[in-house]
Amino acid sequence: MKLKKLVLTGAAGRLGSYLREPLSKLCDELVSTDINDVGNLYEGETFIKADLANFDDMMGVIEGAEMVVHMGAIVDEAPFEELLGPNFVGSYNVWEAAHKHGVRRVIYGSSIHAVGMYPKNEFINTEVAHRPDTFYGLAKCFTEDLGRMYWEKRGLESVHMRILSAAQVNNPRALGSWLSYDDLIQLVTRCIDTPVTGFAVIYGVSNNDRAPVDNAKAAFLGYRPKDNAEDFAADVLAEADVLDPHDPGHMCHGGPFASVELGNSGLAGMNVIDDRKKS
Amino acid sequence: MKLKKLVLTGAAGRLGSYLREPLSKLCDELVSTDINDVGNLYEGETFIKADLANFDDMMGVIEGAEMVVHMGAIVDEAPFEELLGPNFVGSYNVWEAAHKHGVRRVIYGSSIHAVGMYPKNEFINTEVAHRPDTFYGLAKCFTEDLGRMYWEKRGLESVHMRILSAAQVNNPRALGSWLSYDDLIQLVTRCIDTPVTGFAVIYGVSNNDRAPVDNAKAAFLGYRPKDNAEDFAADVLAEADVLDPHDPGHMCHGGPFASVELGNSGLAGMNVIDDRKKS
Amino acid sequence: MKLKKLVLTGAAGRLGSYLREPLSKLCDELVSTDINDVGNLYEGETFIKADLANFDDMMGVIEGAEMVVHMGAIVDEAPFEELLGPNFVGSYNVWEAAHKHGVRRVIYGSSIHAVGMYPKNEFINTEVAHRPDTFYGLAKCFTEDLGRMYWEKRGLESVHMRILSAAQVNNPRALGSWLSYDDLIQLVTRCIDTPVTGFAVIYGVSNNDRAPVDNAKAAFLGYRPKDNAEDFAADVLAEADVLDPHDPGHMCHGGPFASVELGNSGLAGMNVIDDRKKS
Amino acid sequence: MKLKKLVLTGAAGRLGSYLREPLSKLCDELVSTDINDVGNLYEGETFIKADLANFDDMMGVIEGAEMVVHMGAIVDEAPFEELLGPNFVGSYNVWEAAHKHGVRRVIYGSSIHAVGMYPKNEFINTEVAHRPDTFYGLAKCFTEDLGRMYWEKRGLESVHMRILSAAQVNNPRALGSWLSYDDLIQLVTRCIDTPVTGFAVIYGVSNNDRAPVDNAKAAFLGYRPKDNAEDFAADVLAEADVLDPHDPGHMCHGGPFASVELGNSGLAGMNVIDDRKKS
Amino acid sequence: MKLKKLVLTGAAGRLGSYLREPLSKLCDELVSTDINDVGNLYEGETFIKADLANFDDMMGVIEGAEMVVHMGAIVDEAPFEELLGPNFVGSYNVWEAAHKHGVRRVIYGSSIHAVGMYPKNEFINTEVAHRPDTFYGLAKCFTEDLGRMYWEKRGLESVHMRILSAAQVNNPRALGSWLSYDDLIQLVTRCIDTPVTGFAVIYGVSNNDRAPVDNAKAAFLGYRPKDNAEDFAADVLAEADVLDPHDPGHMCHGGPFASVELGNSGLAGMNVIDDRKKS
Amino acid sequence: MKLKKLVLTGAAGRLGSYLREPLSKLCDELVSTDINDVGNLYEGETFIKADLANFDDMMGVIEGAEMVVHMGAIVDEAPFEELLGPNFVGSYNVWEAAHKHGVRRVIYGSSIHAVGMYPKNEFINTEVAHRPDTFYGLAKCFTEDLGRMYWEKRGLESVHMRILSAAQVNNPRALGSWLSYDDLIQLVTRCIDTPVTGFAVIYGVSNNDRAPVDNAKAAFLGYRPKDNAEDFAADVLAEADVLDPHDPGHMCHGGPFASVELGNSGLAGMNVIDDRKKS
Repeated sequence: MKLKKLVLTGAAGRLGSYLREPLSKLCDELVSTDINDVGNLYEGETFIKADLANFDDMMGVIEGAEMVVHMGAIVDEAPFEELLGPNFVGSYNVWEAAHKHGVRRVIYGSSIHAVGMYPKNEFINTEVAHRPDTFYGLAKCFTEDLGRMYWEKRGLESVHMRILSAAQVNNPRALGSWLSYDDLIQLVTRCIDTPVTGFAVIYGVSNNDRAPVDNAKAAFLGYRPKDNAEDFAADVLAEADVLDPHDPGHMCHGGPFASVELGNSGLAGMNVIDDRKKS
Repeated sequence: MKLKKLVLTGAAGRLGSYLREPLSKLCDELVSTDINDVGNLYEGETFIKADLANFDDMMGVIEGAEMVVHMGAIVDEAPFEELLGPNFVGSYNVWEAAHKHGVRRVIYGSSIHAVGMYPKNEFINTEVAHRPDTFYGLAKCFTEDLGRMYWEKRGLESVHMRILSAAQVNNPRALGSWLSYDDLIQLVTRCIDTPVTGFAVIYGVSNNDRAPVDNAKAAFLGYRPKDNAEDFAADVLAEADVLDPHDPGHMCHGGPFASVELGNSGLAGMNVIDDRKKS
Repeated sequence: MKLKKLVLTGAAGRLGSYLREPLSKLCDELVSTDINDVGNLYEGETFIKADLANFDDMMGVIEGAEMVVHMGAIVDEAPFEELLGPNFVGSYNVWEAAHKHGVRRVIYGSSIHAVGMYPKNEFINTEVAHRPDTFYGLAKCFTEDLGRMYWEKRGLESVHMRILSAAQVNNPRALGSWLSYDDLIQLVTRCIDTPVTGFAVIYGVSNNDRAPVDNAKAAFLGYRPKDNAEDFAADVLAEADVLDPHDPGHMCHGGPFASVELGNSGLAGMNVIDDRKKS
Repeated sequence: MKLKKLVLTGAAGRLGSYLREPLSKLCDELVSTDINDVGNLYEGETFIKADLANFDDMMGVIEGAEMVVHMGAIVDEAPFEELLGPNFVGSYNVWEAAHKHGVRRVIYGSSIHAVGMYPKNEFINTEVAHRPDTFYGLAKCFTEDLGRMYWEKRGLESVHMRILSAAQVNNPRALGSWLSYDDLIQLVTRCIDTPVTGFAVIYGVSNNDRAPVDNAKAAFLGYRPKDNAEDFAADVLAEADVLDPHDPGHMCHGGPFASVELGNSGLAGMNVIDDRKKS
Repeated sequence: MKLKKLVLTGAAGRLGSYLREPLSKLCDELVSTDINDVGNLYEGETFIKADLANFDDMMGVIEGAEMVVHMGAIVDEAPFEELLGPNFVGSYNVWEAAHKHGVRRVIYGSSIHAVGMYPKNEFINTEVAHRPDTFYGLAKCFTEDLGRMYWEKRGLESVHMRILSAAQVNNPRALGSWLSYDDLIQLVTRCIDTPVTGFAVIYGVSNNDRAPVDNAKAAFLGYRPKDNAEDFAADVLAEADVLDPHDPGHMCHGGPFASVELGNSGLAGMNVIDDRKKS
Repeated sequence: MKLKKLVLTGAAGRLGSYLREPLSKLCDELVSTDINDVGNLYEGETFIKADLANFDDMMGVIEGAEMVVHMGAIVDEAPFEELLGPNFVGSYNVWEAAHKHGVRRVIYGSSIHAVGMYPKNEFINTEVAHRPDTFYGLAKCFTEDLGRMYWEKRGLESVHMRILSAAQVNNPRALGSWLSYDDLIQLVTRCIDTPVTGFAVIYGVSNNDRAPVDNAKAAFLGYRPKDNAEDFAADVLAEADVLDPHDPGHMCHGGPFASVELGNSGLAGMNVIDDRKKS
């Protein structure tokens, strides 16, 4: 059941870069694509420079693929007009091209920000209604609804990985929200090797003691994370300031995105390098 | 508490046309807007020709309003690219302009097609997850999520009226889905005169014996429809063909939209005149 | 959409007798069947004497029908061995014969006794798990599960009417559980004239102020009962003894069936004539 | 089934005063009690001056009764220390005395303030968790939990009527929350004449178009209110100020109690005369 | 608390054979029964040849027992008429004989096929409504409902083990559905040694990464499986064909039973030897 | 983020005594308080003798604290009048004093007896409605509701630890309900070091195979118990008597408290020394 051809979008982005090598081993041919260059290629990997917002580009990239891992997007909050092309229209382009080429499944890099306004003392499962915290999160909601429709109307499967925070554990929120590199790889692998998925949603989070989200409804995917951010808890908590439970940025799943002004970068105060660019 | 200024978008469309006169009585000044002309004006009504997809147009129209009744959109399934401007970007423009001008509340003409893929023997309430049946329905999902975010992040209220079918009762589906003219007026009036709403969703359907949706969660809005499509049942059923429970177009809430090919008109077979144009 | 041929089982039973005339008007040909004779026939009605427990009998009766209204059964609690033929095997025979003859839908006279062990201060909807109170109720559970399977595996529709008590209002329980003759007729008519039903369950109860069951999930069937047992409340309550909330026969939906010894008649103390015989 | 002896506490209070005459007709002997005098008695009524906070007083009052309608309490928010005697200990005294005397059922004047912190755009049913808005509401929570325990441990039935606002309709909140005098009488009557109740909770609200609470789970009690505050809507809304959806006092079920400082009177701004005294 | 006498039905069947030795150690006397011979006996074991469909046989076998482990049945889909005796009437005979002899608890070998029509991307718990996939599954539904009734009416406890697939892991479905031998033993042991169970349902599945069912509601039974089919995943997936998410046989919990024609063997394509015979 | 000042009530009680040393390490200054003396002090610990029922005492003790761990109470069922001071008024005093002094969070020693009347074969989560089994449990319900109100009205956080049984494992119930010493320490530590909690409820139970309660909703607190009462199962079960599933004391979560007469000690038959005194 090794795949013949697999496409990875956003291959030059932070998470895309992590995924290139492991994905290259799951298929005969990995087609990586991004609006930026990715540098040296792995065995079995080819690269096509392409713009998500351009339908013809996507048609060309996806032709002949069995599955698409769609990670490409602007990966921060930004004005709606900036996100419209890559994050909204880009998703449509990927799904429509996938449908036209008979692709079996799209695996999508969704985000906790699709439901970021829920307070953290609610343990949210994968079926709660959308509560986006930013235009960035709104694009994830849009894409999840799009993916469900393509499954129900056209039989195109998709799995939507709502990633919490795939970055260093250097703040209290990350004790719950961390997704380690190894667990990310396992997660994407399960999304690919599960024989049938239909439409599914799953949170991308490690086996953290304080993980605040519920993957029970996605149990059939077999994702069992191994890493635990609690290893960093003593250090992180020793240095942390007192937080304010009345600040959505502290109390809600979305973290800083829950309190940032719409359209402004939400990365300030988060422990990730600013890689805001189309990927 | 009579409103000083109220804006109605899509004023030249079928439902917009119905609403102009009654809305003009609820406020000192009704500003009607559409990309098409509306003809003679009612007392207290002014008209501004404007394109939903143009942000500056919307900024001009909405200035000084207390509330906006947003009915404008292409009112049929169409290719995504055609809907993108009026139905997606248009909603963003309305909400963003409303926010910038300090509008208190947006009342939105949403649709059953946001949840059209649920089978009819599920009695769906106003909190079920989105299951759009078309790109048209997907735009409704997008706008509802957008509206929720503007409430939670910026305190802008909105009520989303998921209209089932505001047309003649001349087919079996309409026995459940009909929204009469009078009930439509009552519904919009309640959305306006309810003192506080936060974010809310409500189905737009008459008091039909066979109404297949559940407005209990929106009870506080006080919408109590009076008309009943059962008055037409004997005639409609006498002429109806046997339906196929395995056809989503017969079995799902979305009706013909649930089986139409994405991007194609869903009005064929529905009892409405084709008024597919930007309104 | 008037039916060409409709079959009614249990036509000589109490409820079957009520249904013969109104059903005869909904079709060109009504085939009534029972193990007992029914006497004079209505216009358009024919009678076939047949045993529910005999598969060949059922094959003969059902041939050519579009729908079957299946009311036949022993209509009281009795030893399992006695119920096995008519109430269990009989249901299988009806569904299997209906499938073999391409029948579109079976309407079944199920009963509150499929869920009779729920306490009355739980408002039970049509999706609660089975909690039968007697072997009689267990046969209803069996048939509902059978009907669901024939829908999901073979596409044969069925509606299961869980009748509460279609008898006089002469005791406190009946103030909630009464199903009037007129409402019974309306209910069966809706089960027939609803264009698509898939698999559905609905409680058969009038519009009693004290009706203890929830038909919301079956709203699409359009059943709106008109009669109200509260008209009899003053008289009934004036004469009623104090009931014991710790007695399942007083506290549970099943009434006397909830406390009767399994296999013994549950009609003692209920206000119906004992018509325990195969119908 | 006419009661021999019925006890009414808080008989000198506003609601207690309403109930004396109708209750006197439901029993051979009505024993009214309060810490204040009630004036002239109705036929069949006797009065005993007693302090709810005094157990011996309650033992004396309740002896021989079949049911107790417990309306006595300080009927406003007040410091915890003031409420402790009548509203907390008083409830214990009533239930414990009722148990010792073999009373069958207590009907309790609970309040929306037991769940007053829910936002109004949540349609709350009778099973939601407690969210008291004041010490006054906390006493209602305490008594409901006490009543459930006496039912489950000792078989003493109770019905808890969460009254919304039994006062004039002269503000927007009351359009949803009004309980008319006639509907109050009907409600209490149903709580008494329903043959078995176990432990039950029901909202005391009229048939208002805008009623924001859900009595479905208590349907078996047969309470069907007749009055509708919408009759007053035009006048009330015409004079109403714009409300603030971010103020719990406007947005939450508890109304002014949801924003009042704990321990301070919540009646300011409500349309009731201040009858804050032990009743 | 070691049992004095325990009965095992279906002792000559595949799972029954597994259970004989471990069960013999949990009691002073194990009475094994089957319609076929079992061969050599373990210490403390006796054998009685008996037909499940014969009530007198069951009365004889069960006399004096404290508990019954009821595994006997035709273990495949077959025509209804063939299953009627052993799988339906047999269950009645076991429960009725157990009741007459004062047995404390029946542990039943139920099956995933009682709910086999749920799609695999629904994580089903032990309280979902029945959705049988075959007559075989329908007999499991019947027996679970019967068991609940004997508990609620007669106080006879029962635990219903819905076994997924106790066979080799040689196909993709088994990666989720496998129940290892050791885990089966643990499961049955817990069902016996838990001090009180009332009526309970639990899925019989190992600690597979991809286990698609939810045992949370049965947590009090303390079943904690140890084995994990993921050990076989690499090999199984390497050889697997691409599955079709639109085929119920691939998408539903019941596997091949979800697509097999009613009455035909569902074992074709499953990795078990055909041991279709009464056991 | 090490706390400057932390208060522990009930410091001389059984659980309070366990907590003194570990809590002393989490803060610069631990103020222990009880109505009884505690003996020698740990480093950083001071002791203040005080009566929970005395508001001024509590004001003095709590002044300057950041958090309060409130374990003080009579720790057994007793007459309501005896519990009123320490268990009811005491909780009010702690929260009110905490509010007046600007304390950030109260961690409360609640109990399974707040929900003790649920049968054990229901897996209860932390959001189920209260079902107290005793006056002792009723005080826990009262305090949880109080804590929720102080959070919603005044922003004072609280975590309510519903402890099952922190005692030896020497009876069958304890196989599910045991909370080990180490896990208790971990639990309290998580309640303190979690950056934001709002209002939260969590069960205090070890990682027992048979743990009958569901902490999923409190996952964000990161409590992951390590000990497992199953280590003692063989011995405990070997000596256990047969239990009666119809006895609430055996079948319900509250254990002996579920069947004890209200007001009488529930410790008889439980495996704890009687330390019934104010702590």
